Amino acid sequence: MKFGVIVSCVLGGFMAKIVAISGFKNSGKTTLIEKLIMEFTREGLKVATVKHDGHDFVGDCEGTDTDRHRKAGAIGIAIFSDNQYMIINQVPIDERELFRTFDYADLILLEGFKYSDYPKIEIVKAGEEPVGKHVLALVSDVERAGYIHRDDVERIADVIYRSIDK
Amino acid sequence: MKFGVIVSCVLGGFMAKIVAISGFKNSGKTTLIEKLIMEFTREGLKVATVKHDGHDFVGDCEGTDTDRHRKAGAIGIAIFSDNQYMIINQVPIDERELFRTFDYADLILLEGFKYSDYPKIEIVKAGEEPVGKHVLALVSDVERAGYIHRDDVERIADVIYRSIDK
Repeated sequence: MKFGVIVSCVLGGFMAKIVAISGFKNSGKTTLIEKLIMEFTREGLKVATVKHDGHDFVGDCEGTDTDRHRKAGAIGIAIFSDNQYMIINQVPIDERELFRTFDYADLILLEGFKYSDYPKIEIVKAGEEPVGKHVLALVSDVERAGYIHRDDVERIADVIYRSIDK
Repeated sequence: MKFGVIVSCVLGGFMAKIVAISGFKNSGKTTLIEKLIMEFTREGLKVATVKHDGHDFVGDCEGTDTDRHRKAGAIGIAIFSDNQYMIINQVPIDERELFRTFDYADLILLEGFKYSDYPKIEIVKAGEEPVGKHVLALVSDVERAGYIHRDDVERIADVIYRSIDK
């Protein structure tokens, strides 16, 4: 896969190249995203990811200073160095604010969002039916007519690339 | 300690109540901050914290989905639920941007920043001399004239409270 110049599409006023990797639980979303990140990064793209968690994730690791702050009752926690920062904030946020945080990214991959209006790659396991909302490609863990195989990362990346290169 | 109405002081255009807890390595900064968070939270204040890390901290925990994104090469990573969010971003940030993120907080406690211009509580261990820059109170791990003992959290909290209540 070779990338040319990527032209952004406008999403809610923000210049974004956003594609969701969707699918029901245990469909292999994270594994596919890992492979796609590696593929796009190899091609020189800056990739960011946004995951929606229906449950309440536990940010931060047991025993870190910031985790101690959180357990003591801090609502917002940040740590930063010269090169990076982390924020854990116990307030709601609109996903579009997160997209703005990653305005330097060439591509933002979303994990989840299967009922959203974002363009998406939907992973459908054998025996399941797709949600099929704004789908760029359907992906399956088995050979299935009309589906790309989950392991054919290059082809999936190519679909994403073509969707953002216009 | 009983709090009245807290009036903010203006810092760089942002209404902030910011106090640093400073001291050399292993002086007990995190432990003191934990105790202060608990004290202020008990009094009904919303507390946020910002830690500066001279080294490069590892955000996120081994094995989480977001950590897998990062290891695959994603530069920016976010996860969010209805109630909270986490951002890990491999780009530099000015601490004042972090303060703006916590604009709902009644008090932002900084960990570190010993050479900064923020008002601060400086922890000085036996045998050490303070940096002494913009100090609200000096704190020691031993009985020492002119110092508050590190375990006298209520008195330290009171100094902080008085500094932000004007």
